[in-house]
Amino acid sequence: MKTRITELFGIEHPIVQGGMHYVGYAELAAAVSNAGGLGIVTALTQPTPEDLAREITRCRDMTDRPFGVNITILPTFRDVPYGEYLQAIIDGGVKIVETAGRNPEPHLPALQAAGIKVIHKCTSVRHALKAERIGCDAASVDGFECGGHPGEDDIPNMILLPRAAEELTIPFIASGGMADGRSLVAALALGADGINMGTRFIATKEAPVHDKVKQALVDADELQTRLIMRPLRNTERVLSNAATERVLEIEQEKGDDVTIDDIRHLVTGELGRQVLHEGDLDAGAWSCGMVAGLIHDVPSVKELVDRIMAEAEAIITERLTGVLAEA
Amino acid sequence: MKTRITELFGIEHPIVQGGMHYVGYAELAAAVSNAGGLGIVTALTQPTPEDLAREITRCRDMTDRPFGVNITILPTFRDVPYGEYLQAIIDGGVKIVETAGRNPEPHLPALQAAGIKVIHKCTSVRHALKAERIGCDAASVDGFECGGHPGEDDIPNMILLPRAAEELTIPFIASGGMADGRSLVAALALGADGINMGTRFIATKEAPVHDKVKQALVDADELQTRLIMRPLRNTERVLSNAATERVLEIEQEKGDDVTIDDIRHLVTGELGRQVLHEGDLDAGAWSCGMVAGLIHDVPSVKELVDRIMAEAEAIITERLTGVLAEA
Repeated sequence: MKTRITELFGIEHPIVQGGMHYVGYAELAAAVSNAGGLGIVTALTQPTPEDLAREITRCRDMTDRPFGVNITILPTFRDVPYGEYLQAIIDGGVKIVETAGRNPEPHLPALQAAGIKVIHKCTSVRHALKAERIGCDAASVDGFECGGHPGEDDIPNMILLPRAAEELTIPFIASGGMADGRSLVAALALGADGINMGTRFIATKEAPVHDKVKQALVDADELQTRLIMRPLRNTERVLSNAATERVLEIEQEKGDDVTIDDIRHLVTGELGRQVLHEGDLDAGAWSCGMVAGLIHDVPSVKELVDRIMAEAEAIITERLTGVLAEA
Repeated sequence: MKTRITELFGIEHPIVQGGMHYVGYAELAAAVSNAGGLGIVTALTQPTPEDLAREITRCRDMTDRPFGVNITILPTFRDVPYGEYLQAIIDGGVKIVETAGRNPEPHLPALQAAGIKVIHKCTSVRHALKAERIGCDAASVDGFECGGHPGEDDIPNMILLPRAAEELTIPFIASGGMADGRSLVAALALGADGINMGTRFIATKEAPVHDKVKQALVDADELQTRLIMRPLRNTERVLSNAATERVLEIEQEKGDDVTIDDIRHLVTGELGRQVLHEGDLDAGAWSCGMVAGLIHDVPSVKELVDRIMAEAEAIITERLTGVLAEA
């Protein structure tokens, strides 16, 4: 398949792996790139910039295809040496960076000088237009369905993607709700140039997470995600578990007075590691998209990507071409 | 275009007009049916069963193509003589009924005995499966995006449609977020057999509503709908206006203690008439889908339907076939 995204990134299939904390290690990124998609190493999962440099080297050892690095810029991460992480990316010869969170503008000159293509993750048309204006090469447009941070507008991809297509000139990928060939074709029809998959890639053989996590995604249906931290205007979509339900209780009890300190013991990233790596599923809140309802197996990354592409091709050449032919 | 829905209903295009209070009169239904879609007369907008009988006759005078009647069954409408409305539909020779609200099972034997095909509106896979089990011929699957009552599960169509496709045997149409050829192709790719459009059909020349209402839909972007009556578990998606914002204030103030009596003066159907027919846009809350963000003009129904079908065909034969051909 050839789209503006496969052209921009030099990849075979328009499928990008989402940056995911405690999941986006070299093993998964390399597997996605080797399968013809774009694998993404998550920078801040590495404790130091030196660790990131080593992870990039590890990824390059496992694939000779393009891969990217995700870096999430948040005001709350005050102590993160962003400049040093970015330097590790540049020095590592990575040519694709996904930025998320705050406006990446301060970092663009250094990245662009190194010949790096930048794709910025956005949850609204307004932010995607801003990304385009400041010089990002592409956008990742993140609908209400998505795991992690969907923003506060609650606009699903059925609306957000065509709206983005109306406004943007740069290519963009659909993020949130993407699971299979059906979602890929739907995203392309709505104007996107490819898809970003996070949760779906967690349920693969190569994903470096505990088997209990993969099984939890297979078991979950579409009704089992929750939105937490909405009163803090830092909404996160997570899988329902004991920690999540407790967060919601605290938010309900405290109302508008709730602060991050009231729930920190249930939501911090370190607990995410305990869930994802040790399989202690109730240890803390962990990001999960509604797409869990469409996950029914744990294939290898290559099996998954090949299946998506075959299904997409069949939908286009058989189902869709068929409804026209039979008119 | 030929799908299971065009076959079931004997229509040219897989586009169904949503049943809409104070909008679904014979003029609009006939225009949609004449354009090759399926027009729908809203039964309960007619004050009496006799008025509905006359409206059905009026619609038949304006089109010789199939059209349907929507009937919404709600526990709160205790005084509605449902049996008499249904008899008017049967006696009027209508062959397609859309049911919405409560379980239509008690009414199915009479409808089926009259050779009427029944399509039931559902906001969850669970309810769609129930509709299939009790013998409905088709389902209208209603995503979180939709105007009016999206239910309480908040599952958008990017997830809900493929989930419905996995579970249902009967054909189903996608409702919510449907505006154009892009949404039609996306819905078909996700497994639906056609689309239902409500809000989009209000912004047409033939829709019997005030021009100010049509202009409000053109002016609105995707961020301007609100969910009211959530604390009553009777959530309704409406356009933001003075009445809507007041409802939200009252809900905020009263919290879990809010009752319908606190907001009745802002949300009742009679106010909807004042908004829709008299153009008094702030008179009360009125249903509006997020799709308002994708509405940019007020074409005739035929122009709209023809444009959707031409756009859908171009997306399939050019854009989607193109990304494959260029691989």
